[in-house]
Amino acid sequence: METFFTLLARRVDECASLLCVGLDPHPADLPAPTADAARTFCLHLIEQTAPYAAAFKPNSAFFEVFGAEGWTALKEVIDAVHAESKRLGSRIPVILDAKRGDIASTAEAYARAAFETLGADALTVNPYLGRDAVEPFLRDPNKGVFLLCKTSNPGSADLQDLTVGSGQQTADRALSSAVRRLPSVSLYEHVAYLAQTWNTADNLGLVVGATHPEALARVRSAAPDLWFLVPGVGAQGGDLKSALRAGLRMDGKGLLINVSRGISRAENPRLAAVEFREQILAFRRPKV
Amino acid sequence: METFFTLLARRVDECASLLCVGLDPHPADLPAPTADAARTFCLHLIEQTAPYAAAFKPNSAFFEVFGAEGWTALKEVIDAVHAESKRLGSRIPVILDAKRGDIASTAEAYARAAFETLGADALTVNPYLGRDAVEPFLRDPNKGVFLLCKTSNPGSADLQDLTVGSGQQTADRALSSAVRRLPSVSLYEHVAYLAQTWNTADNLGLVVGATHPEALARVRSAAPDLWFLVPGVGAQGGDLKSALRAGLRMDGKGLLINVSRGISRAENPRLAAVEFREQILAFRRPKV
Repeated sequence: METFFTLLARRVDECASLLCVGLDPHPADLPAPTADAARTFCLHLIEQTAPYAAAFKPNSAFFEVFGAEGWTALKEVIDAVHAESKRLGSRIPVILDAKRGDIASTAEAYARAAFETLGADALTVNPYLGRDAVEPFLRDPNKGVFLLCKTSNPGSADLQDLTVGSGQQTADRALSSAVRRLPSVSLYEHVAYLAQTWNTADNLGLVVGATHPEALARVRSAAPDLWFLVPGVGAQGGDLKSALRAGLRMDGKGLLINVSRGISRAENPRLAAVEFREQILAFRRPKV
Repeated sequence: METFFTLLARRVDECASLLCVGLDPHPADLPAPTADAARTFCLHLIEQTAPYAAAFKPNSAFFEVFGAEGWTALKEVIDAVHAESKRLGSRIPVILDAKRGDIASTAEAYARAAFETLGADALTVNPYLGRDAVEPFLRDPNKGVFLLCKTSNPGSADLQDLTVGSGQQTADRALSSAVRRLPSVSLYEHVAYLAQTWNTADNLGLVVGATHPEALARVRSAAPDLWFLVPGVGAQGGDLKSALRAGLRMDGKGLLINVSRGISRAENPRLAAVEFREQILAFRRPKV
């Protein structure tokens, strides 16, 4: 059976790209604040950028704001990526950015909503509730999870940068003792260690913002094998090269660089996607 | 202007109840796995229990699983609570349990989706992304937020029980130094301290599970003034009296005890709600 990250890695090879195109129909970018306009906005972006996209990432909030009609539009946008994949003969994964997280029976319903009802291939998930709240999203190895680790916003420091001291208890005793031996571990590094051990089916990655390249490097050393979804390049101030330098795996993979406004607000989104892909490739080449 | 917690406290007085009725149309409890069945399930519960409910808490996941139709059903369920409130002449707040949390511009869209599109009065929010991700949900004092603090599931220990050591940085320096003076603070207590300082508009409370009464007592001492939404009584194993003992404020308020399956799966949900309300009242009486 193909795991989510086998699917992603194949697409990365087929399109020679680590670019994830964010589908964020922000009301300010729409001609009118309607679900129809959100759909049109995204379908245009998909049509323009699909050949250069290793993945697409629709942002659930900008659809939910339109209620049931927004939900229909979101489903159509995800369907459109699957249709475009067929046309190109190369499956492009859809990562639904919805940052869900709840106790087990509820998490199961969220997993079904994202993976079955909407047809997404992967989902962003919040780690605050712990392992039993993440597990229902990981049950199907075909479907992936990107666990929030170090987010791109300034407020990420409030919790994620806290030093987690010795004496903590986790469900995983071996891990607790490993963490205890480390001199000073931030909460986001702890999440990275947890994710590295929880990834038993090759379908768990991390969200690490490009706005904190030092944090990205620390997360890479805590989770050397995992894929990272990296938002924050461009509009949020993250630097592409610093992110690649800090986060690429030895095999020149392991990073999915998300760009949303940097492409959607460009005069020519196709050209912007081509250029982002080229910039990433230029950096990758010496390493692969 | 009325704040969210003024609204809630008035309803608590008017119905002499601290009971929050959870609206969780779990597929296993429905005659058929459809949005229609979910709506009927919830409308029946609302009709049966409204006189004894200080609040209703629909669980978003069990509607999202039905896609756009589920979203429509969720909106109709929320509307039904508002209609029932008019009939009773006493406004019953709707707390949408959706555990959202994202960076600022996205959080704004989630806030609009919950408060404007769906018409909820309050929302559960995940604290992992920090203050700037919570703030967009707090802008309208009429609308409330319950921030996840110590959740009712076993895995809550994985992150929430971690000891946050000295040396951490937060956006709030005075708070950092206050926390540093404390001997040993768990992440969930840190979140409680943060929430206590972030609650400048009387519209921020906490989610604290009834399954951990010692934790509930610690959160109460960290956040003496806040309202807590307390899930986990009954099906999840939390004990009602222990929760009340550990969490009630000096004024006999400050706790909203959520019961979902304990009411919805009862032979007579109305009677079950009456009995839960009575048990809570019996415990409260000596204190007020």
